[in-house]
Amino acid sequence: MFPDYDVIVVGAGHAGCEAAAAAANLGSRVLLVTMNMQVIAQMSCNPAMGGIAKGQIVREIDAMGGYSGIVSDKSMIQFRMLNKSKGPAMWSPRTQNDRMLFAATWREMLENTKNVDFYQDMVRSIIIKDNKATGVITGLGHEIKAKAVVVTSGTFLNGVIHIGEKRFGGGRVAEKAATGITEQLVELGFESDRLKTGTPPRVDGRSLDYSKMEEQKGDDEIVGFSYKDVQKPTEQRSCWITYTNQQVHDILKTGFDRSPMYTGRIEGVGPRYCPSIEDKINRFAERDRHQLFIEPEGWNTVEIYVNGFSTSLPEDVQYKALQTVPGFENVRMFRPGYAIEYDYFPPTQLSHALETKLISNLFFAGQINGTTGYEEAACQGLMAGINAHQKVRELEPVILKRSDAYIGVLIDDLISKGTEEPYRMFTSRAEFRTLLRQDNADLRLTELSYRLGLADQDRMDRVIEKRNGTEKIKSILKELSLDPSEADKFLQEKNSAPLPHKQKTIQVLLRPNISLPDMMDQLPTIKNALTGFTRDTIEQAEIQIKYDVYIEKEKEIVKRMSQLEDLMIPENFDYGRVAALSNEALTKFKKIRPRTLGQASRISGVNPSDVQILMVFMGR
Amino acid sequence: MFPDYDVIVVGAGHAGCEAAAAAANLGSRVLLVTMNMQVIAQMSCNPAMGGIAKGQIVREIDAMGGYSGIVSDKSMIQFRMLNKSKGPAMWSPRTQNDRMLFAATWREMLENTKNVDFYQDMVRSIIIKDNKATGVITGLGHEIKAKAVVVTSGTFLNGVIHIGEKRFGGGRVAEKAATGITEQLVELGFESDRLKTGTPPRVDGRSLDYSKMEEQKGDDEIVGFSYKDVQKPTEQRSCWITYTNQQVHDILKTGFDRSPMYTGRIEGVGPRYCPSIEDKINRFAERDRHQLFIEPEGWNTVEIYVNGFSTSLPEDVQYKALQTVPGFENVRMFRPGYAIEYDYFPPTQLSHALETKLISNLFFAGQINGTTGYEEAACQGLMAGINAHQKVRELEPVILKRSDAYIGVLIDDLISKGTEEPYRMFTSRAEFRTLLRQDNADLRLTELSYRLGLADQDRMDRVIEKRNGTEKIKSILKELSLDPSEADKFLQEKNSAPLPHKQKTIQVLLRPNISLPDMMDQLPTIKNALTGFTRDTIEQAEIQIKYDVYIEKEKEIVKRMSQLEDLMIPENFDYGRVAALSNEALTKFKKIRPRTLGQASRISGVNPSDVQILMVFMGR
Repeated sequence: MFPDYDVIVVGAGHAGCEAAAAAANLGSRVLLVTMNMQVIAQMSCNPAMGGIAKGQIVREIDAMGGYSGIVSDKSMIQFRMLNKSKGPAMWSPRTQNDRMLFAATWREMLENTKNVDFYQDMVRSIIIKDNKATGVITGLGHEIKAKAVVVTSGTFLNGVIHIGEKRFGGGRVAEKAATGITEQLVELGFESDRLKTGTPPRVDGRSLDYSKMEEQKGDDEIVGFSYKDVQKPTEQRSCWITYTNQQVHDILKTGFDRSPMYTGRIEGVGPRYCPSIEDKINRFAERDRHQLFIEPEGWNTVEIYVNGFSTSLPEDVQYKALQTVPGFENVRMFRPGYAIEYDYFPPTQLSHALETKLISNLFFAGQINGTTGYEEAACQGLMAGINAHQKVRELEPVILKRSDAYIGVLIDDLISKGTEEPYRMFTSRAEFRTLLRQDNADLRLTELSYRLGLADQDRMDRVIEKRNGTEKIKSILKELSLDPSEADKFLQEKNSAPLPHKQKTIQVLLRPNISLPDMMDQLPTIKNALTGFTRDTIEQAEIQIKYDVYIEKEKEIVKRMSQLEDLMIPENFDYGRVAALSNEALTKFKKIRPRTLGQASRISGVNPSDVQILMVFMGR
Repeated sequence: MFPDYDVIVVGAGHAGCEAAAAAANLGSRVLLVTMNMQVIAQMSCNPAMGGIAKGQIVREIDAMGGYSGIVSDKSMIQFRMLNKSKGPAMWSPRTQNDRMLFAATWREMLENTKNVDFYQDMVRSIIIKDNKATGVITGLGHEIKAKAVVVTSGTFLNGVIHIGEKRFGGGRVAEKAATGITEQLVELGFESDRLKTGTPPRVDGRSLDYSKMEEQKGDDEIVGFSYKDVQKPTEQRSCWITYTNQQVHDILKTGFDRSPMYTGRIEGVGPRYCPSIEDKINRFAERDRHQLFIEPEGWNTVEIYVNGFSTSLPEDVQYKALQTVPGFENVRMFRPGYAIEYDYFPPTQLSHALETKLISNLFFAGQINGTTGYEEAACQGLMAGINAHQKVRELEPVILKRSDAYIGVLIDDLISKGTEEPYRMFTSRAEFRTLLRQDNADLRLTELSYRLGLADQDRMDRVIEKRNGTEKIKSILKELSLDPSEADKFLQEKNSAPLPHKQKTIQVLLRPNISLPDMMDQLPTIKNALTGFTRDTIEQAEIQIKYDVYIEKEKEIVKRMSQLEDLMIPENFDYGRVAALSNEALTKFKKIRPRTLGQASRISGVNPSDVQILMVFMGR
């Protein structure tokens, strides 16, 4: 009934969809198996993509030729570049999205991707021969053969939903949980544990009083995620900000004795940085208010997502508490918030290719690896899809370094450090964040992806053009002199000292408060010199000029660090022979089997002395 | 947490959505409770609306101010007026629809309907006080109060899905079944039984060879369902026709020993006129082929619905058999077909208002009443919604007569005759089908609906304009003479005899082969006389002129029959006192409690003599 596939992807959320697209675009024959084709690529939580650190990831996915950026751009109802007042390393694009349109766009793009087949069924186990995944067995009993399997089970594996004291099985509300895979893999020696996540109530926008909230409009300029030209909307929808207060907190507390969090019914650990509202008032008892972010669910719907109010308290408590939030006095609740517990597999059981160490050709991506967030899931899916393809074709795995991309940081963190709570990306996790900017993800990654055969020619052409354009602008600005007679009035307006004499433009640009767009606007010499360059290229040149010192400094560190990174540890290295290692390091090394001394140094519990000893032993 | 509602509607399929819209538009405060707000108004079966007899129902719903016609028009990807070669009583509009767009449009329209609230939860029981429904209790334990409750549970009540020998609970694949209501109502004395329905596999359109099939394009003229102006598409997608063959049948037969139909695992009775493919090859063993209708699922999807191939055979058998269908040699299956069993309540337990006899203010609509089909469900929802509102406001129920509408025929059939298999509408069920045409549903129903407060002013204005225009055209054509010098060439072209002398246009129009649009096209006199009238009005006048004899004859029968229809039987009439009644009639009368002698006469097992006796007893 089924042909033999190269890659089977289990699950069609953010991770599964990216995995299927990537493997297929590289040339693998892919089957995407989902329990319900009607609900592919759901935004199970809030209707937004990107944000701080996450926006950088979406741009990286896009630069690599993944789809999340394009889908987000096509379905956006609002765009904001967060942190624009800070340095460019902190700029983070974010879209609010039309939930239905997001899913429909993903499905349409996947359907238009050659080599992707679909099948609606539950996968209940992996076919394993000689410690190698060779297919899946479905709930209906089909054996479907493949050379590699990517599991992206999200919250569906043995999912249990909690609302107050009520508890029922499900992968999302009203959708069935998936069963079988955990039990099979645990039997094979995998470790598995439980995590928890949650979602807030959804309410009727017609019942809210927005005059009591603070409006947050989209940016005037819609940059978007994709480096391709995607049609952007001409209008945007606003979000709104309001706050909880002491009364809200008091009401919420009345439900604590029925909270599955506090009565011990939930065993899984929840996301620290996306806590439930009950968690927030508990952990931050000193704070008398928490911000709520009121997000519309789409262009034409009245449904509203109450971001910041994630909860598994009984719904009557959710409702009573909501009513005391300013603007929510007459709120109508559409759907209560809930918590969901699900199985994950601690990610130290994976290689950097996201392949499991116990079973070859078996890849995990997304929440199954202990992460939280659409962007974190999507980028793992992308890399798992790429590496499943590489494995099938007997090619080297594709591994992004920590200095290449947030994606590299994320995977290295997971693999080396593991996680015991839902892992979310932050800029602070990246030691090279001046390099890993949202504006240069294309310059960092597209060439690699193009060489793999994933990013298309158009993407590569754009990168070359941007790179050349940037260099050209930089050399123009290095050559071009500004005359005081032309510049001084402009400089005065910007509270900048007049020019003592003719000066190269690049010198002027390095001054604080002076931006290239402003110069172009006010100084005909600059405008004439830069006419014809794109906005993107001009911005890139400016960033490279203004932040050159920082960038170069980080590059230097990367170079020094890469000495450790490049020191490969042989695959079958016998740590037992290294007598002087600490007990903890020995245990961790044996378990995690780091690929390089760099990775070894990042494992928690491993001391610099352990790395030193290892380095000496390996013959340095 | 909830205000007191006028009407709670349980379930958001075709019936539930129409019920909510109707009650709300009449002014009731409505809560629509659905298990999953993400999947409101799904087309669970094929992506099409209307067709023979069903198209008439959709136009009736539209004329009454329901939404199904507008939603279908907005989401259509193809339009055809079926049976255009037959008399206008048989003309039946049908759309193919974009499945996703259909659901999205429904949800958007409901969200924009004042007085409709939404809540996502399962209803597990009805709150009943003194034999009166006063609210619902949800799966999460909420008691929500209302003055009336409409239950539209579709296939969800104790739903069990079958594929081959596999069986699992569910309301649709991957969605949970609903539980509780049946058990509660049976305890209260309701009768309940099981029915079955099924759906065919869905396949990948990219894997089909359309050159081996017959293309079926949409009509050049898109009439649509709604009497309002709804934007119609400018392009259409084609459907395709292919056939099974002996080989297909032979392969299917190899699965019969694993068929839940033939191994006795399915107890429920399936829809006779929409049988599974295994049913067809079994019951019509002499036929060596069955038609399959290949329907695209939307504008942009490659998914295809294989209409005519509904089956619950094991999927490997489904697949192998499909592969031998011309054009399907390389078919890729997305989702297997399956059968689903669910609870229904024999509809003789209802009044004509669709209110249950045992529990007042409790209304049932759709598959819970034993019907099959989106249109059948939607029109019951509409009427249940109207009547729930009427009950809440202590107003008379709104009951359409068999001579008013297919909707009247459907409900009267259900209430009087009951059904032991899924009930589907046919033109043959209507004794007055010359009156119940798709072209005049507005003329038949809108005034009633407008008086109720459901159809809006615009609808009523259009009806008045159409009615006046029609009369005006008729009187123009009665007056206007045609001269042989102008008409004879045209008549000759149409193989019609030349005019012997000047003749009134109406006389000429009564000739076979002569149509008003053709006359307008060719005869300047007619064109000039009718300039300014709409296409719709001209068609209406022509139909009324050409079919006048038949229409008048039927009206005469209606008038005679209405003598029986108008003879009301007192509500508490004691049939036991009517000594001469046959035993069967006595039992049925006591159970069904017909409202009129007309209804009494239609109850199966009741003989004319029983009606006669009753009539005599009642004092005639």
